[in-house]
Amino acid sequence: MAKQYPDDSTTLHTDAYELSMIQTYFEKGIQNKPAIFEAYFREMPFHNGFAVFAGLEHIIHYIEDLHFSDTDIAYLKETGDFSPAFIDYLSHFKFQGTVRSAVEGELIYNNEPIMQVEGPLADCQLIETAVLNILNYQTLIATKAARIRSVAGNDGIMEFGTRRAQEFDAAIWGTRAAYIGGFDATSNVRAGKLFGIPISGTHAHSLVQTYGNDYDAFRAYAETHKDCVFLVDTYDTIKSGVPSAIKVAKEMGDKINFLGVRIDSGDMAYLSKRVREQLDDAGFTDAKIYASNDLDEKTIMSLKMQRAKIDVWGVGTKLITAFDQPALGAVYKMVSIEHNGKMEDTIKLSNNAEKVSTPGRKQVWRITKKADGKSEGDYVALWDEDPRKLDELYMFHPSYTYINKTVTDFDARPILQTIFEDGRLVYQQPELEAIKARCQQMQENLWPEYKRDLNPQKYPVDLSQKCWDNKMALIKKIHEYVRNINYDD
Amino acid sequence: MAKQYPDDSTTLHTDAYELSMIQTYFEKGIQNKPAIFEAYFREMPFHNGFAVFAGLEHIIHYIEDLHFSDTDIAYLKETGDFSPAFIDYLSHFKFQGTVRSAVEGELIYNNEPIMQVEGPLADCQLIETAVLNILNYQTLIATKAARIRSVAGNDGIMEFGTRRAQEFDAAIWGTRAAYIGGFDATSNVRAGKLFGIPISGTHAHSLVQTYGNDYDAFRAYAETHKDCVFLVDTYDTIKSGVPSAIKVAKEMGDKINFLGVRIDSGDMAYLSKRVREQLDDAGFTDAKIYASNDLDEKTIMSLKMQRAKIDVWGVGTKLITAFDQPALGAVYKMVSIEHNGKMEDTIKLSNNAEKVSTPGRKQVWRITKKADGKSEGDYVALWDEDPRKLDELYMFHPSYTYINKTVTDFDARPILQTIFEDGRLVYQQPELEAIKARCQQMQENLWPEYKRDLNPQKYPVDLSQKCWDNKMALIKKIHEYVRNINYDD
Repeated sequence: MAKQYPDDSTTLHTDAYELSMIQTYFEKGIQNKPAIFEAYFREMPFHNGFAVFAGLEHIIHYIEDLHFSDTDIAYLKETGDFSPAFIDYLSHFKFQGTVRSAVEGELIYNNEPIMQVEGPLADCQLIETAVLNILNYQTLIATKAARIRSVAGNDGIMEFGTRRAQEFDAAIWGTRAAYIGGFDATSNVRAGKLFGIPISGTHAHSLVQTYGNDYDAFRAYAETHKDCVFLVDTYDTIKSGVPSAIKVAKEMGDKINFLGVRIDSGDMAYLSKRVREQLDDAGFTDAKIYASNDLDEKTIMSLKMQRAKIDVWGVGTKLITAFDQPALGAVYKMVSIEHNGKMEDTIKLSNNAEKVSTPGRKQVWRITKKADGKSEGDYVALWDEDPRKLDELYMFHPSYTYINKTVTDFDARPILQTIFEDGRLVYQQPELEAIKARCQQMQENLWPEYKRDLNPQKYPVDLSQKCWDNKMALIKKIHEYVRNINYDD
Repeated sequence: MAKQYPDDSTTLHTDAYELSMIQTYFEKGIQNKPAIFEAYFREMPFHNGFAVFAGLEHIIHYIEDLHFSDTDIAYLKETGDFSPAFIDYLSHFKFQGTVRSAVEGELIYNNEPIMQVEGPLADCQLIETAVLNILNYQTLIATKAARIRSVAGNDGIMEFGTRRAQEFDAAIWGTRAAYIGGFDATSNVRAGKLFGIPISGTHAHSLVQTYGNDYDAFRAYAETHKDCVFLVDTYDTIKSGVPSAIKVAKEMGDKINFLGVRIDSGDMAYLSKRVREQLDDAGFTDAKIYASNDLDEKTIMSLKMQRAKIDVWGVGTKLITAFDQPALGAVYKMVSIEHNGKMEDTIKLSNNAEKVSTPGRKQVWRITKKADGKSEGDYVALWDEDPRKLDELYMFHPSYTYINKTVTDFDARPILQTIFEDGRLVYQQPELEAIKARCQQMQENLWPEYKRDLNPQKYPVDLSQKCWDNKMALIKKIHEYVRNINYDD
């Protein structure tokens, strides 16, 4: 945001209705009523077998910076929508909530809490919009990146999407999420500076146009860079691009590292095989072939099936926008609130069974077998339950309850960790490399059936008996309330 | 970006290869060689009959802020990829290019330049990535918004997408683009502050959960707000939500403006008709029905066909992510560069006919009939041509040249306007309201056949004869160059 605008605090990066509700709470004197909200999504992104949690870094920044600046306050006054007393309250607002969350790089699933916010009702409500905005996008991209990594195997994969990203922040945070999900490098220099992600790039067609022919352009590039990857498709890949690259590589000899050539258009399967032959015939068997051109996990898999000779994949548009599913639908629902000094669980009903929320403050336990460390599923339990104290665990599907199993000799690991406690940051973010390594390591505990790209087995996310009973009791209670409504008097 | 990061200048918001190429130009002493680049896209977004240009505001900020900060320079040194002399050059870099562009709210089409950057080669190259990043996204959203506006007619349409946007900038700039394209308001308070867009919002399910029932929640809201729209689907729309809203509206009388109710789930066609009856029967015939739930132009059209009784549409995910096509593929190609003191036009070839670029510095002329001001098409001509001097204009399709016509009694209006001249901002952005009005007004000059949502007539974007001849001559020249390559010596 540039200078002609008032200071751009992100505290107003929230939906108007959050402030409208907080005004009601404030004027009714219940803005500090203890409440608990949880964020979760209902459907697995891309029908993938797992999702990769990302976004915590930005959420931490956002919460640490929360305060209504002078220009925020001036703007709210101008709208005329808010009372002076309420605006005064906002001007002194300081976030005091407790935030528990999955950590970045952790695997997460649908219909389990991935973040939990506990604290004064107003504080919980204020951050809903921004928290969802961040974690929806970054989790989506980290998951998409993991899908592409799974198809690419050990090949290099580079994030090249900035020019097609949905504005600046998506380019920056998206490439960080892609790195967590398994990408090797980014083309975005700013992301390199901010996050320490390795930057990568070759040159554009314009370099060749500047010199008017491939040879002069590659020669000029080689005289000014040690590492060289030449883009060979400006005029004619086979007849001009590759022969020019080979000629320059031979001339320059040890003065450059001739890493390879990049193809950005045409039939990649056919061209890559022809180019491989050209390079091999010239003795450059170590030179790699880089490809870029609307790639994603589907085209990469298809090219591999066709035995295309591609070593490094530059992935842009389809990754950075999550083209085949550009939004994750995580929601943020109240699960409990204080009434008369006691926490009471709350529910949101719907005609649609999957849309009925699961009431109560919960923890997600990742259940693995002691013997091999392999995944048995996730166990969503009320906060005061601890499956580590149990010898056997009865796990059942939250909708199809006749699908169930009893697990013994298991380990249970809690997924939600404390990030902020009463407004104070208590969690130390690991280095990005450690987050990326965690993502990789967590996938190793997962049976291959959950990891395949297409039609993976559904990973079990089960409710504890207590959690299920609590939900059924609340549904019954609300049905009774609705049945007894009679406003005809 | 938060404080633990070095200052977050956006000058490094560029692809690494831009800097790699500029290093070559600098070390070869040609960084100031005069060059011209043009941005254009090849396919109409959403197969719409027109696109709405947006993004200039952010591009102006970005270019005005261009400079390598101390931490940018420190980072570039750290990478080890760049020579000290080159880094010193960057530390003194000041943008000196001339930028010509379509203005915001203008209608634009595929295969015509929508922005032109002329100036030192390095300057043109540096800004490619960020310019595309901005205009690709914002033009996409403005166009999507115009599609939704065309279906919504005079109904209210509100942008509610922040929580599903692809990170913060997309929410902010996307809602501005949506406003240009025809939306009435946004839920994002920060966008209200920064751009003066009207903000709008009701309340969430959590308000009802806080009070435990619809009636108490609505009553509390009504006692703390003048304007009231009640969300009625937390527990049961027909049996609890609407009767509670009516009861509160009756009790509060003139103390509130009972604007209406919002439905966020369930069968919108069925529910809206039932709710309309309930409201009418209670005498609230002016109360409106607001709907939100994964809406877009297709669902709105379907609901209207079903005679759903919806007055105001809250549109989120599908708009702010351009869900059905989340990227516009604008590219930025060199069209001309100086050689031996003379500008020479340049081309990028491809096996794919549509991907061959159109060489030469160009202007886009919008041709309308003098009689009725209606569109005849766009005429893409070389810079020194001026169709205003002609009595009749021969217009032909750039690929199917046998599709042609001769236009007389026409007006010709140039689309590209000067924004920066030699690095200095010379364009004064109109107020946002004026930009929005321009978008509306421009659509009025368009025949309805170009404006329909589905399968619109293709708007003609034709090349001048001179522009076409120039392109053919260059294709021939490059083919000769490729044919004569012989590196076998």
